[in-house]
Amino acid sequence: MSSRRASPPSRALLVVGCGLIGSSLARAARAFGAAERVLVAETDPRARARVVELGLADEVAADARDLASRADLVAVCTPPHVVVEAALDALSVMRENAVMFDVAGVKGPVAAGVAERGGDRARAFVPAHPIAGTERSGPDAGFADLFENRWCIVTPDASDPRAVARVTAFWEACGARVASMTAEAHDALLAATSHAPHLVAYALTATARHDGGEVDHDVVRYSAGGFRDFTRIASSDPVMWRDIFLGNRDAVLSALDRFERRLAALRSAVEAGDGRALEDVFARTRDVRAAIVAEGQETPAPDFGRPHHGAEPAGEED
Amino acid sequence: MSSRRASPPSRALLVVGCGLIGSSLARAARAFGAAERVLVAETDPRARARVVELGLADEVAADARDLASRADLVAVCTPPHVVVEAALDALSVMRENAVMFDVAGVKGPVAAGVAERGGDRARAFVPAHPIAGTERSGPDAGFADLFENRWCIVTPDASDPRAVARVTAFWEACGARVASMTAEAHDALLAATSHAPHLVAYALTATARHDGGEVDHDVVRYSAGGFRDFTRIASSDPVMWRDIFLGNRDAVLSALDRFERRLAALRSAVEAGDGRALEDVFARTRDVRAAIVAEGQETPAPDFGRPHHGAEPAGEED
Repeated sequence: MSSRRASPPSRALLVVGCGLIGSSLARAARAFGAAERVLVAETDPRARARVVELGLADEVAADARDLASRADLVAVCTPPHVVVEAALDALSVMRENAVMFDVAGVKGPVAAGVAERGGDRARAFVPAHPIAGTERSGPDAGFADLFENRWCIVTPDASDPRAVARVTAFWEACGARVASMTAEAHDALLAATSHAPHLVAYALTATARHDGGEVDHDVVRYSAGGFRDFTRIASSDPVMWRDIFLGNRDAVLSALDRFERRLAALRSAVEAGDGRALEDVFARTRDVRAAIVAEGQETPAPDFGRPHHGAEPAGEED
Repeated sequence: MSSRRASPPSRALLVVGCGLIGSSLARAARAFGAAERVLVAETDPRARARVVELGLADEVAADARDLASRADLVAVCTPPHVVVEAALDALSVMRENAVMFDVAGVKGPVAAGVAERGGDRARAFVPAHPIAGTERSGPDAGFADLFENRWCIVTPDASDPRAVARVTAFWEACGARVASMTAEAHDALLAATSHAPHLVAYALTATARHDGGEVDHDVVRYSAGGFRDFTRIASSDPVMWRDIFLGNRDAVLSALDRFERRLAALRSAVEAGDGRALEDVFARTRDVRAAIVAEGQETPAPDFGRPHHGAEPAGEED
């Protein structure tokens, strides 16, 4: 962890929407000394009560507009389909020199929505996306070092450079590495690294249901041979993922095309009994994983089966 | 772990082929008191030297026929394409009352091959498949509790019931739960729970390479959003997986059909911008995971990103 700084990147951070990412930011801002005060706006009464019970914030309110005028940094962490409205609401009451970012997984529609409707103030908005998370949701699911050594991509196509610098400093104080690209490049990249993989995982997990809808208990019982691992990815927040696919349709379809071509080639090799072709592909995929480990985005530790050797749980039960 | 027994299921276990599964069995047999003595046959000189260095066995040889006559239980843990030959070799010198099992992931061809060519002695052979493993290979990759609380499926279509009872007792002593079904049912089930998911993971991981073959470094760098998790599955042993797809072709193609239908439906929903259909599917896949957790095949612990909160590594580096 970074050491506490004399002058933190934010005097008062407002987190709008306190789910997995929002509550992790609230925790990280305190743990890493990235903000002096943490304010949280959360519209859902149950989640808001949990924020209070967990002591995640110095001030909590239902409406972001009641807090936004006291923040110098606003983090919009709502579900994707309300990010633009939430950003515009907070922008309308934000202080002159305050800056804002969001954390949505699709940047094109958010950047365009805020730029078109936010007027001059939109230059204080820096579209951002931390490549981090778990399959859990809600204020209990967050943890302070979720972003440590993870990438946060900013897409400041229309942002004030000073706003970009302040948002970057905040994320770096929370342990993240910050990269910058266009919103279009981000959305194409994430379609390949996240959105299409999630759609594939959802489709595979859906095969465990019979056409009538009931779960196939044999598939569940003997799921440890590979199937199980897909179900974790496919148990992420349904509303968030719906919004991502609606928001990044064309890039997702392109990434799916690419996947379907690779799968068709493997399928043909299986049909033809072409062992040489299969072994060639399988041997080359190992290099991809080795590259991910070399990039620091994964450990080489084998997956031992988590019931015996897994991560220590900190969150609630499913 | 089970307590040590006065009379272990095996006086002398011979493990033929000492990779991930074979070396885990050798370790488990000792740790759980499932065998008094452990003999290992391993044709690969480097792996054989490691078995000696790691002290995994009381006796080590290159040729299983040099050891098989002294074993009362033989575990054939070779790569799938040589299982039948290895089983027949050992059967030819095995003691009258000794029994044998294999651990291959496809049971139909193994069961048929041994039954057709093994003569009367083939009834001492019990096809078996532990649903356990990691993406690692070789004698260093194994560990004693790999099988604890995992399922081992036996397919004793043509086996002597006494052989089945002894093999079952051995697996249970190693911590496994034993289920019995036909080889055909096993192969259809594993096509759905393991083989098709692996083919899907290989296809998705292959999308990280450009058509020219070089790895896309942006995909690698920003892989933490979902893509990374597929690469673990897709870094399993290429030869073993080649053999599995060659040996279980028809069932794999049927399972792929099922997956492709689910993916096509999701793709159509994305194309049509049908958020309701997407959300419905995504919400229902969570139940599948909840069923897997309830079945004891997974913990509810979230995946925190293993570099920070992951399993304590015990094996070597990649």
